Amino acid sequence: PDSYSLLILPGDGIGPEVMAEVAKVIDWFQDNRGMSFDVSHDLVGGSAYDEYGTPCADQTLARAQSVDAVLLGAVGGPKYDSLDFSVKPERGLLRLRKEMDLFANLRPAQCFDALADFSSLKREVVAGLDILIVRELTSGVYFGEPRGIHDDNNNPENEGGRVGINTQRYTSGEIRRVARSAFDLARQRGNKVCSMEKANVMESGILWREEVQWVHDNEYPDVELSHMYADNGAMQLVRNPRQFDVIVTDNLFGDVLSDAAAMLTGSLGMLPSASLGAKMANGRPKALYEPVHGSAPDIAGQGKANPIACILSFAMALRYSFDQGDAAAELEGAVERVLADGVRTADLMGPQGGTAVSTSQMGDRIIAAL
Amino acid sequence: PDSYSLLILPGDGIGPEVMAEVAKVIDWFQDNRGMSFDVSHDLVGGSAYDEYGTPCADQTLARAQSVDAVLLGAVGGPKYDSLDFSVKPERGLLRLRKEMDLFANLRPAQCFDALADFSSLKREVVAGLDILIVRELTSGVYFGEPRGIHDDNNNPENEGGRVGINTQRYTSGEIRRVARSAFDLARQRGNKVCSMEKANVMESGILWREEVQWVHDNEYPDVELSHMYADNGAMQLVRNPRQFDVIVTDNLFGDVLSDAAAMLTGSLGMLPSASLGAKMANGRPKALYEPVHGSAPDIAGQGKANPIACILSFAMALRYSFDQGDAAAELEGAVERVLADGVRTADLMGPQGGTAVSTSQMGDRIIAAL
Ligand SMILES: CC(C)[C@H](C(=O)O)[C@@H](O)C(=O)O
Ligand SMILES: CC(C)[C@H](C(=O)O)[C@@H](O)C(=O)O
Repeated sequence: PDSYSLLILPGDGIGPEVMAEVAKVIDWFQDNRGMSFDVSHDLVGGSAYDEYGTPCADQTLARAQSVDAVLLGAVGGPKYDSLDFSVKPERGLLRLRKEMDLFANLRPAQCFDALADFSSLKREVVAGLDILIVRELTSGVYFGEPRGIHDDNNNPENEGGRVGINTQRYTSGEIRRVARSAFDLARQRGNKVCSMEKANVMESGILWREEVQWVHDNEYPDVELSHMYADNGAMQLVRNPRQFDVIVTDNLFGDVLSDAAAMLTGSLGMLPSASLGAKMANGRPKALYEPVHGSAPDIAGQGKANPIACILSFAMALRYSFDQGDAAAELEGAVERVLADGVRTADLMGPQGGTAVSTSQMGDRIIAAL
Repeated sequence: PDSYSLLILPGDGIGPEVMAEVAKVIDWFQDNRGMSFDVSHDLVGGSAYDEYGTPCADQTLARAQSVDAVLLGAVGGPKYDSLDFSVKPERGLLRLRKEMDLFANLRPAQCFDALADFSSLKREVVAGLDILIVRELTSGVYFGEPRGIHDDNNNPENEGGRVGINTQRYTSGEIRRVARSAFDLARQRGNKVCSMEKANVMESGILWREEVQWVHDNEYPDVELSHMYADNGAMQLVRNPRQFDVIVTDNLFGDVLSDAAAMLTGSLGMLPSASLGAKMANGRPKALYEPVHGSAPDIAGQGKANPIACILSFAMALRYSFDQGDAAAELEGAVERVLADGVRTADLMGPQGGTAVSTSQMGDRIIAAL
């Protein structure tokens, strides 16, 4: 059978709970679809700090670099709030993204029909919504140097005497490669890309716009390309999100805009993501899959968490890492049927009611639907 | 009578049309409320470039510095798209903000009851919405150095050979002064401030959080303060915007988040803004007032534009520059009555119909309601 290596990093909070349901799904595909998964486990985030004194240990990174795909739960929690910046749970995630060079972060914002009423937006604005945000993930202000907080005591006008600095920095090569990812994905969907920046204010935004246009004109003239300022992009996402197909944007705008887009769907507990890098020797891209939601420490350990985002992240792994598009669609279909049957974790329980289930029961239902 | 000096900069696109209606309002207050306005006019943006070769001429800036308040319409248009970055219409606006040191940008996002159905959000989510975003306006990545696009030819990994750089830079003093504005405003409203940044990723965000907290603890312990990551802020604005009272954030996050917030209300043509700086010798703050909407070149010159945002910007001038809170409330009340009567410019005309009016008729109706 086809054999795939997976590293599972459950992380913190509800991470381990939702990942336990993914394990069931992996077993099912192994038993029923002739795939063979070589699964290993490790720690990341706060749990890694507790064990190793660092949110992403060197040996964890080395493992992540050597597998076909990493599945991550979530990181962070109030327990770690007072830690130094350099060892906070988030740094573990950022280290993996950066060192694996996972430059293209795919964040689908899809509105599930059975859940459209959960959105704070009107049903007619979001029903059928299906957009894909491609966020640059390894550069920009997240990683640019110089950065830090410094004394500025010689400046009598600076009450407080400190200065905080970060650097937004993009090379044309960094922009081109993520643009190519966006255009490739658009060709498999609605064939439309909207690129967002602040070229009216930032030179890095001008470069962004020019390089995306260059890739379009030279390599993807068949794809429809438009440009939008990111502030207008935020407005348009709220006003009429279905005007978009694929959105490509930088690391920081992508962080904010993809979260806004995720919330439009009304069901954050449903949304997966994929972070992809360059192709490895075996032809598969470096890859990390994780739900968009956070570690939700307030409900951790209570069986209340919704495992679907994490399960759909595994579906993305099937599609993008293992070229098993049919299996991915099979899993996504099972999730939709379970939802259509009214099966609901607490976060999905609305006025219309439904069958209340725990995290683990939701996993079982999905297996049954498969 | 109290005498106030005003510089009117109509700008481009629909700017002159909407400003013509403000002129009627100014006349009304002069004739009926014992105020005396010393009004002068000048150009900014594309129209200034056409006339002076620069989007904000030195003499325009000098005038702006010397008056009690500047009223600005809007800048920009496709005619100027191909201009060099340094002389684009937006640079005129940015120059005024920076040189007048207008560090606190007040952007109310209010949902007018008569217009709540225009929102893409459900009525029950936005009805009665009344939040105030205080955006830092003179620093951050908009103005930080180094900045620019450079050759990077010696880097073989950089296909394209260029690099674009901008610098996010905040001093503690810059953060403290805008935080004070936010706390002062909160005391006149719901007494709650939420500060937004990305302290989990950016050191400038850590400094932001610490300095806002410092101002709170030392000077405004009576105001309720919370902190939120900006990506979560974008989500929460979509999910449940009424949880907020005053939001304080930096220049770039403020740009994106205030536009998202504006769109929540469903009536962009209604939203004013004020940009305030330090107090002048006469006790009044340096100030510039402008609508949140843009220059809308597609409808310019057709009498279709909604003048209300610009008129409400003048109401903000009455309140914040001239300490005429009663007159401001009188003007705002007149606008609400006209809306309640079903009077509608094209952008406000919904399925429920109403009395269709032109830009200038809307101005007349508001005068009549006064
Ligand atoms: C946890 C945090 C560092 C991260 C980010 O800012 O990228 C998160 O918000 C995300 O979007 O994956
Ligand atoms: C026109 C542009 C430079 C400006 C900005 O980015 O600040 C605008 O979007 C705004 O919010 O006032």
